[in-house]
Amino acid sequence: MVYLVGAGPGDSGLITQKGLECIKKADVIIYDHLANPTLLSYAKNDCKLIYAGKIAGNHHMVQEEINKTLVEHSRFGNVVRLKGGDPFIFGRGGEEALELSKMDIPFEIVPGVSSSYIVPAYAGIPVTHRGMASSFHVITGHEDGNKTSSALDYQTLAKEEGTLVFLMGLKNLDKIADNLIANGKDPKTPAAVLERGTTAAQR
Amino acid sequence: MVYLVGAGPGDSGLITQKGLECIKKADVIIYDHLANPTLLSYAKNDCKLIYAGKIAGNHHMVQEEINKTLVEHSRFGNVVRLKGGDPFIFGRGGEEALELSKMDIPFEIVPGVSSSYIVPAYAGIPVTHRGMASSFHVITGHEDGNKTSSALDYQTLAKEEGTLVFLMGLKNLDKIADNLIANGKDPKTPAAVLERGTTAAQR
Repeated sequence: MVYLVGAGPGDSGLITQKGLECIKKADVIIYDHLANPTLLSYAKNDCKLIYAGKIAGNHHMVQEEINKTLVEHSRFGNVVRLKGGDPFIFGRGGEEALELSKMDIPFEIVPGVSSSYIVPAYAGIPVTHRGMASSFHVITGHEDGNKTSSALDYQTLAKEEGTLVFLMGLKNLDKIADNLIANGKDPKTPAAVLERGTTAAQR
Repeated sequence: MVYLVGAGPGDSGLITQKGLECIKKADVIIYDHLANPTLLSYAKNDCKLIYAGKIAGNHHMVQEEINKTLVEHSRFGNVVRLKGGDPFIFGRGGEEALELSKMDIPFEIVPGVSSSYIVPAYAGIPVTHRGMASSFHVITGHEDGNKTSSALDYQTLAKEEGTLVFLMGLKNLDKIADNLIANGKDPKTPAAVLERGTTAAQR
């Protein structure tokens, strides 16, 4: 059995009950850079730990390698693929699920809290609020070179009434702000830049 | 101390470690209809349980009453305000936080997994997927009569490339679909209607 588990953001207390149970019973854990490393201390003594180390811009293992590693280890017992945040929110969990499905390997998705609304929450910002924001919009802040569409549709995004959340957007911060304003977003719109949310180093 | 805790959707295994710890140490729990009732079994024997019962269209306690109840009970120890999903995603947690802040009562936000991406995940639908959806958009499916803007901006929503998630949208399903198509959304866009997600009654 393979479990695609979301570890949540930096605060290890934000993993779900189910996610923690998966870690405790895992025979193999393939983990990301983003997951809080203290979570690994819940693993069994003889659990095999494999670092997938997907650091942005410096991929340690390419996705096909990760898929291959998942499939290979599924013969040895319970495999946990531990990801920062949620597996299905820019976590490429869908690609891993497709690969497992193709190889007829049973798997389960164990969601995690997503930084998209948790990091604002820890900074005191509700992504929705009565009379102020009746929607929120989560957008990748670093665009994927392999994507077919060349750019985000800022013309549409700038018109949304709700909260816009750009994930991993620090490098493109100027570009994001400029594009939103150029497409009609009020330059006085309240905005926050958040990093290392839910950790002691939160800014 | 008051904890605004997200219980997650129906599956009680999806509450966070932190959320469960709050329930275990609570002296008072003010809980919603939406939270999984089995979570209350983790409360102390002498914990006072108060049902806030916010059933859509049949509010058991109005929000001001809930705020008042929170403030009153904060004198008696640890108060947990247990909400379905996440407190800040259409959970009115922001209003409660403002009230507590106004009354100088210390509080903490303990996020929960949100049905907005978990319920699709349990149905096998990733809200983002490489090359298919590089954003997702969470919109209230039952509009608030007290909102200043009279209607959702379907013209903008219909243009988004990513996944649109309408929460609590069952009653307005026809209206939502008609408005999206009238504003240019391809009628062949894959769509799913999900109810009671993450529970045994999921459809």
